[in-house]
Amino acid sequence: MIAAARAPAIKGRLGILAGRGSFPQVVAASARALEHNPFVFTIDGEADQDWSGYDTASLNIGNLSAFMDIARRESIGTVVLAGGIARRPGLRDIRPTWAALKSAPSALKALLSGGDDKILRAAIHVLETHGMCVLAAQEIAPDLLGEAGPLGDHRPGKSDQANIAAATQAALALGHLDIGQGAVAVSGRVIALEGLEGTDGMLRRVAGLRANGRLRAGSRGVLVKLCKPGQEQRADLPAIGPDTVLNAHASGLAGVAIEAGRSLVLERDRVIAEANRLGLFVTGLELDQDGRQSGERRS
Amino acid sequence: MIAAARAPAIKGRLGILAGRGSFPQVVAASARALEHNPFVFTIDGEADQDWSGYDTASLNIGNLSAFMDIARRESIGTVVLAGGIARRPGLRDIRPTWAALKSAPSALKALLSGGDDKILRAAIHVLETHGMCVLAAQEIAPDLLGEAGPLGDHRPGKSDQANIAAATQAALALGHLDIGQGAVAVSGRVIALEGLEGTDGMLRRVAGLRANGRLRAGSRGVLVKLCKPGQEQRADLPAIGPDTVLNAHASGLAGVAIEAGRSLVLERDRVIAEANRLGLFVTGLELDQDGRQSGERRS
Repeated sequence: MIAAARAPAIKGRLGILAGRGSFPQVVAASARALEHNPFVFTIDGEADQDWSGYDTASLNIGNLSAFMDIARRESIGTVVLAGGIARRPGLRDIRPTWAALKSAPSALKALLSGGDDKILRAAIHVLETHGMCVLAAQEIAPDLLGEAGPLGDHRPGKSDQANIAAATQAALALGHLDIGQGAVAVSGRVIALEGLEGTDGMLRRVAGLRANGRLRAGSRGVLVKLCKPGQEQRADLPAIGPDTVLNAHASGLAGVAIEAGRSLVLERDRVIAEANRLGLFVTGLELDQDGRQSGERRS
Repeated sequence: MIAAARAPAIKGRLGILAGRGSFPQVVAASARALEHNPFVFTIDGEADQDWSGYDTASLNIGNLSAFMDIARRESIGTVVLAGGIARRPGLRDIRPTWAALKSAPSALKALLSGGDDKILRAAIHVLETHGMCVLAAQEIAPDLLGEAGPLGDHRPGKSDQANIAAATQAALALGHLDIGQGAVAVSGRVIALEGLEGTDGMLRRVAGLRANGRLRAGSRGVLVKLCKPGQEQRADLPAIGPDTVLNAHASGLAGVAIEAGRSLVLERDRVIAEANRLGLFVTGLELDQDGRQSGERRS
């Protein structure tokens, strides 16, 4: 599946920092396909997968000391961040190392505030301060990246394109503010923006608006998820999976659009199967710097 | 209460288009204080007040024909829009007049899509096409406008100022996109943006995030509501009332900031009493063109 020529250079043993969802296991399986033996740090209160068959240790997200102890013991030299993190570390969770205190105090401060991208940049900076090489998950599992154009049988129609355009502009503005990655537009108008509740929470909200008669009967709509402008590519790329398709359908949407080449499609076969079964489109957008779709995709 | 010199010129009888909430009744009472006898159009499914003692007619929001029939019968020459509208007209609700079809077709189209500000501008344009003078509610009831500085006993502290600054930038971006007026920041980070669900819906969401442990214990936060840039001042100014204070408190916020001179404080005495009782600040922001607080408010 993965050509040897594309295999990334991995220094030492590969560590996976596993948050929630199916993503960490896809990355771990891809690492094994590349003949690596990953060590999995299951983040407390986040990692919700069955890791039998893997070497693992549980980790409080802020406990850098414990991480470094294990990393030294296991000769880990490369780390991948994979999976969502719902809870942020509090002051009392943070167990910094002396190296972090000395060389990355501003990063530690960022861990306690700042938007998602800021916090993840800070985390990566702290790991690099400790000599870790931090890889993007898509370097281990490049087949996860969504490509341009429709993924399944359905394509966005003309009214969908208007919704895609409106939601794209909103998602870009959100990204500039480092707030979230997703927006929903219905009837050409943005009605929901993703905050801390995440994409599924936002889609539940849209379903609620529909149930309350706040959206016109028969009006569909679109979910757009984009990379933040200048986003750190080694963490938190926008991702969709089968649940995204199911939730989009439950909230009455016509489809889902993501940024081609800069977002992840988890369980692609199931995503396509569910989208085809439910009549939704799932499509990859090629965007220029201003967030406009390239001519090719628009025609 | 209102000096005669400040009384607005009202042509013909005054009509009030009443949506939901306490605002329409405040406007109606103010009109009576100015010795006008307002005629109240209670918008179907929206107006939820007791109008005994007033001349009223119920109105489907899209039924311009019925509105014009009554307006002619009652010699109404001036109209005020007051109160929230949760449901938008659908195509089958729209009963345009010939005058509207001839002279304002783009406005009719806007009534079916577009953001809040766009739709309200369109509605005002259609009313003006029919010879109506459309006044701002704050011209009838100028005491509703929030002023700069704290309204009650409490003032924003240093961390509150950081939240106000973050939420202000987010609310401005929202406004540029004509999506919503409000944003919530906690620990210096914007966590929720107002969409179609409205301010109270957003605050319930914040309460949910808190209940789920997604916000750090002890972290408070701030709600900011701003005018949209270039907003039509005759409709839908941002407004707060006692419920806003109660909901802000229920979602663990430290206070509420609104734009001075361009937002409405409904039931001001109760707003102040509840804020003082619950220990929240309610404050008016003076913003420059870029959304920065003026030097005076920052010092």
